[in-house]
Parts: sequence; C-alpha cells; structure tokens
Amino acid sequence: MTRPRFPYAARLSAVRAAMAESHLDALVLSHPPNLFYLCGFSGTAGALVLDGHAAHLVVDFRYLTAARALATGHPDLAALQVVLAESSEDDALAAMIKGAGWTRVGIEAASMPVLRFNRLSAALAGGAPTPLAPERSGPALVPTEGLVERCRVVKDAAEIAVLRAAAAMLSAVAREILPAIVRAGRREAEIGADLDGALRRAGFSRPAFETIVASGPNGALPHARPSTRMLEPGDPVVLDFGGIYDGYCVDLTRTVQLAPSTPEFRRLFAAVVDAHDHAIRAVRPGVATADIDYAARHTLEVHGLGAVFGHGTGHGLGVEVHEEPRIARADARPPVTVLPGMVFTIEPGVYVPGIGGVRIEDDVLVVADGCEVLTQVPIQL
Amino acid sequence: MTRPRFPYAARLSAVRAAMAESHLDALVLSHPPNLFYLCGFSGTAGALVLDGHAAHLVVDFRYLTAARALATGHPDLAALQVVLAESSEDDALAAMIKGAGWTRVGIEAASMPVLRFNRLSAALAGGAPTPLAPERSGPALVPTEGLVERCRVVKDAAEIAVLRAAAAMLSAVAREILPAIVRAGRREAEIGADLDGALRRAGFSRPAFETIVASGPNGALPHARPSTRMLEPGDPVVLDFGGIYDGYCVDLTRTVQLAPSTPEFRRLFAAVVDAHDHAIRAVRPGVATADIDYAARHTLEVHGLGAVFGHGTGHGLGVEVHEEPRIARADARPPVTVLPGMVFTIEPGVYVPGIGGVRIEDDVLVVADGCEVLTQVPIQL
Repeated sequence: MTRPRFPYAARLSAVRAAMAESHLDALVLSHPPNLFYLCGFSGTAGALVLDGHAAHLVVDFRYLTAARALATGHPDLAALQVVLAESSEDDALAAMIKGAGWTRVGIEAASMPVLRFNRLSAALAGGAPTPLAPERSGPALVPTEGLVERCRVVKDAAEIAVLRAAAAMLSAVAREILPAIVRAGRREAEIGADLDGALRRAGFSRPAFETIVASGPNGALPHARPSTRMLEPGDPVVLDFGGIYDGYCVDLTRTVQLAPSTPEFRRLFAAVVDAHDHAIRAVRPGVATADIDYAARHTLEVHGLGAVFGHGTGHGLGVEVHEEPRIARADARPPVTVLPGMVFTIEPGVYVPGIGGVRIEDDVLVVADGCEVLTQVPIQL
Repeated sequence: MTRPRFPYAARLSAVRAAMAESHLDALVLSHPPNLFYLCGFSGTAGALVLDGHAAHLVVDFRYLTAARALATGHPDLAALQVVLAESSEDDALAAMIKGAGWTRVGIEAASMPVLRFNRLSAALAGGAPTPLAPERSGPALVPTEGLVERCRVVKDAAEIAVLRAAAAMLSAVAREILPAIVRAGRREAEIGADLDGALRRAGFSRPAFETIVASGPNGALPHARPSTRMLEPGDPVVLDFGGIYDGYCVDLTRTVQLAPSTPEFRRLFAAVVDAHDHAIRAVRPGVATADIDYAARHTLEVHGLGAVFGHGTGHGLGVEVHEEPRIARADARPPVTVLPGMVFTIEPGVYVPGIGGVRIEDDVLVVADGCEVLTQVPIQL
C-alpha cells in the first residue's frame, strides 16, 4: 500500500516552503491527487492539514485503517497524525483549526467547492464577536492556487523511474495488441474493452481515463467515447489510452487507417507526424512551453491544417493524467519555462468533421539536452 | 449518442420551477452529471445555462460536434443553443451573462470550485462603478444547492426502465461469474479484472466505480482497492462492483467465505443478512430515510455488532453512483421522506480489523406498497 521509495519528507518540505511564502499558518489540502503525492493516501475523501511542523490526515471511518497503515509504512510519515472525522470532515477540520489557534489557513481554491468553503468559514466564524474583534472572530480561510501542483511539476527520481516503467508497459501493450484488435467488422466498444483488459493484464491498476476508440467520422470528436459503431474498410481509427501504475499516469495515442489506404488520410497523417516530430525536437530546458506548442501548430499551419487543430499540444503527466505543464498557445496561459524532470505528452491532432481525425501522442521526459521519449511504439502500426 | 426516450423537456421545466422559487434570472450548471441529466451531454467539461425560456450549452472545441448532435437528436432539445467557448469557458459565460442583462445568476455551490467562482465574479464585476450603482456594477452570482439533484431524486419512467435493465444485467454477471472466479490461490486484482471484463461484455459502458475485491483482513477496509493479495482458505471475500448502462449506475455487493467455513464468519454473515432484510422490509413511501437506516443499525446492535457498522445503510443511484437520498442516521442529515420512484442501495456491513468484513448490498426501487428489489442474486453464493 505505501511506497517506501517516494520521498515524502522532501515533498512536504517543499510545500511548507510555499506555505511560508504565502504567510500561511496552516494549509488544508483536499484535492485527492495532492494527498496521494504528499503521503500516499489514495481515498476519495479526506484532508491533509499541514502546519510548520506537523501533518494531520483527517479521514472518515472508511479510510481509518488505510490511513493508519501509511504512518507505520514509511519512515517519512512516522509523525503523521491520523484524525478520525466522527461526524463530518468539515466539523473535524473546524475543530482542529480553532484548537490550534491558526489565523491564516490556506485552502485549495481550484478544487474546494464554494459550498464547502462557505460552510467551513461559517463554522470557523462561530462564537460571538468581541469588543477587540468586533467584525470577525475566527481564523481566515485563504484561497491558494497550485501550491502543491507547482511542486509536482518537476518529477523526482522515484517518479521518473515509475513513469519510465509505466511508459514501457504501455508501449508493450500498444505494440502487441493494436495490430491484432483493430480490424474491419469489429465494434469500437469491443476494441476498447480489449485495450482495458490488456492494460490490467500488463500490470496497470486501471485505465488512466476512459479509453478512446474513435473510428471513421467519430474520429473528428477529440473526446469520443467508444460506441457500437462497427469499423469499416478505409476507416481512420484514433486509439487513445493510458494506464495508472503505482499511482502514476501515462498516455498514448496512435491512429491507423484500415485498408484501403486513401491519399487524403495519408496527407493528414504525414502532417500530424511532421507536427509531432517538430514539437519533440523543440523540447529542451529553458524554452517556453508555448514554443513547443508553436512548433506543432506552425507545422500544421504550413500543411494548411492550422484551423483543424483545436486543442493544445500536450499536458503534464504524474499523479493526474492532465496536470501542469500545459503545452499550449502563449495567449492561453501564463508563460512556463521547461525544466529538466518535467514529463508531458506531445499530441498534435487534426479533426475533419464528417471525415475523421488523426492524433499521435507520445510521453516525453525533459533531460539536460532535450528529451527522452518514454513511449516507444512505431508511428505507423 | 442521444437517448430520445429521456424526457428532457419535463426535466428542464422542473429545474426552471426551482429557479423561479429562488428568484434566479438564470442558472449556470457545471456539474457534469447534471448536464447529462438535463440534455444528455456527457463531456468532462462544459456548462449549461438556463434562463426562463432558453438553454445554452457552452463547450470547448473538443465537444462541439457532440454538443451539436444533441440538439438535432432529440425533439425536446431542438431549441438548445450550442455556444463555442473560444478562449475559456469562464470568459464565454461572463460574456453571455453580461450580454443577457441577468442580475441574479445561480451557480452550483456543491461543485463549483472557489477559484472559478472568484474568477467569474471578477469578470462579471468588470466595468467602472456608476453614480447610481457605486458599489457593484455587475450581476450577482448566487450559490445554490441541489436544485437539479432534488429533481433527480425521484426517477421518471425512462430512468426506472434503464435502472431495472441495468440491475438485471448486473445480477446476471454476479450469478454467472462470482462462483467461478473467487477461489483460493487467485489474487484480488485478478478477480477484479475478471469482474470488470464481465461488466463490459454484459453491455455496461464501464464500471460505475473502482471494483472492490477485499479478502481476509482487507475486508475490514470498506473501500479497499484490489491488491496483489492471494486468497487463502477460510478467507472472507467482499466483492462490491457496479456498472454504468445508458448513463445510469447500479451497484451490488456479496460476501463469500472460502472453505473451510468458520462459526465466527457465519455469525457475522447471519447478522448482516438480518440487518439487510430488516432494512428492505422498512422501505416504503412515507417513512424517513433514517428509519430505514435504523432498521439495519438496530438489528446489528441487537447482534452486538453496532460498533463495527461505521457507514450509512445506503445511497441513491442514478446518473451518479452516490446520490440522494442518503440512507443514514437521523443526526447525520436533514430528514428525507421516502417517495415512490426513489432508487437506492441497502448495504449494511460489519468490519472487524484484523479479521475481515461482511457487506451485502442490493438496489431497491420504492413502489406504492414497499419496494422492488432490482438486483436478484442469491445472498449465499
């Protein structure tokens, strides 16, 4: 259950440094991937509360045993204090915050719902105003953004080892089964089920997202779900799938055309391969993520396909399948500089309504002089 | 993609009535299950904006084609206006709200993150204050809670038909494969993969949640994930799994003991069966959900097991696998009266650290004189 090789102490220190910069007495973390990152907890509820020296994991009955096992399973977590939320998590948090006397308590604004923020604020404001504090008597909840996510963006050695192993497993699945399962007469959903089964057998704990098998005109929908559509000769078929291994996500897309091949598909395919290759060559420390996006986008524009590439070029991979950094247009996001140890996808695509789509996706690790392509699958299957 | 039999017009009318009660000019819905419920949209992003007469579905590029297909695929949705979010969904929403001149705009407080609320509020407050409105010049965002969820709690005829069919499919999977796959020498994860594959083959689009196979001491963790633990003779094994069919979730749990049987397991098992049966007999229109919970809880207390039943007795099923009504203690939630057409689980369980767990779960539909048990699987496999 616990993974002794993940450096939780170093991760917690990095978050505490970010807390200090924001002048927070404490930080309430409720985004499940951040809890997993910082202490290995993998429940769907629960909160991790950090102050300058202690860490409290607040869980309900369902997760009590698992939470306690974390503290005994990893030396970095020996001081982790597990708190059972008797009635509700919010009541337990409010009691802890009031009892500790913290005044500035950060919350995760990108994931905490308005309802929970308001309830927690109301619970903390309880108690009559005093003459010295006529307006507000409780601690203040401070919305924060990305404190943990910014630590997660550069992977540590243990994460790189897991992601490299996961990408190798995913590549093996793709090489071994894609040529066999994508055939005319089969349904998208059957192929999707084959892929999911192969991911499990390969050692993934589960698919990283809902597997995409988008054939013929369905390929023009970048996030199509596998349907009962039967594959037909000449169909382009977009296959986008990923797995979670030891808590970390990898992601791969290949596109094939069933025989007979058509010049139109070959033209789209060649353009996307060109964009993919240009983007990968653009990856190195010090460039902006938008420069990598531009390498793909400009290439597709040169091929006359700029208008049918509607999404960003890639996204970070880690404990979430979509995380920072986003490889997107300069105007879409604040600028981000590429650093060694970042892991992200490169996945340009083109989508032609009524015809279909082509997308090609690999996972890359930024290294000193460029990138290592973690997924190794022939472009042309 | 669209499901012509779902009565979207009636559902939208019910939500508009709730909006009128809250004096809202418009309502921004961003919780994906609510979008699916109201118009069949099944993306992971997007917003549905309702006012008194119109419905706008705001989507990004990835979902544009799928969104447009909804409007042409169902007569109730012919007037649905699809809006492409060019830069960001929040910018598109802010522009729409300002352009329409609404002053009170509801948002879903239980799902909208604080960050999004604050960004949207800031975008709406744009523009200099005027002498007549010195303090606030923009429309107000009003946190709302459960406007759509309250409509969803009583199922319509189409939903009941889908849930009944889904429960029959799930029952068939359980009856056919559980006796074959749960054997000493197999690993929890293998059994989990078998179940997931069987769900797909049976016609479910995917598992409704991460399948639980919890053997031996792992059974004491109510939300255990399948591990590499190998099943041993005498192990109790909790199997909790569900599927999504046509967008609706069903959920089932059975517990078996591998030979040799032990008196201790038989005692726990008999107590849980007794609690399960008492709870099901307590289901009828007009009772409080807490009364059903009490029927299970009191039964376990009589068996001396009240202290090891740590969760509620059940939860609603529908477009989410955990929804209203919660079948829980009277002190845990505001009182809810059971109505015909509600569908929920009955799933008492006991959890003994170091020994294991027993949970038995069925899905019930409330009918005029009691309930129909939708799942039909022998208690003792």
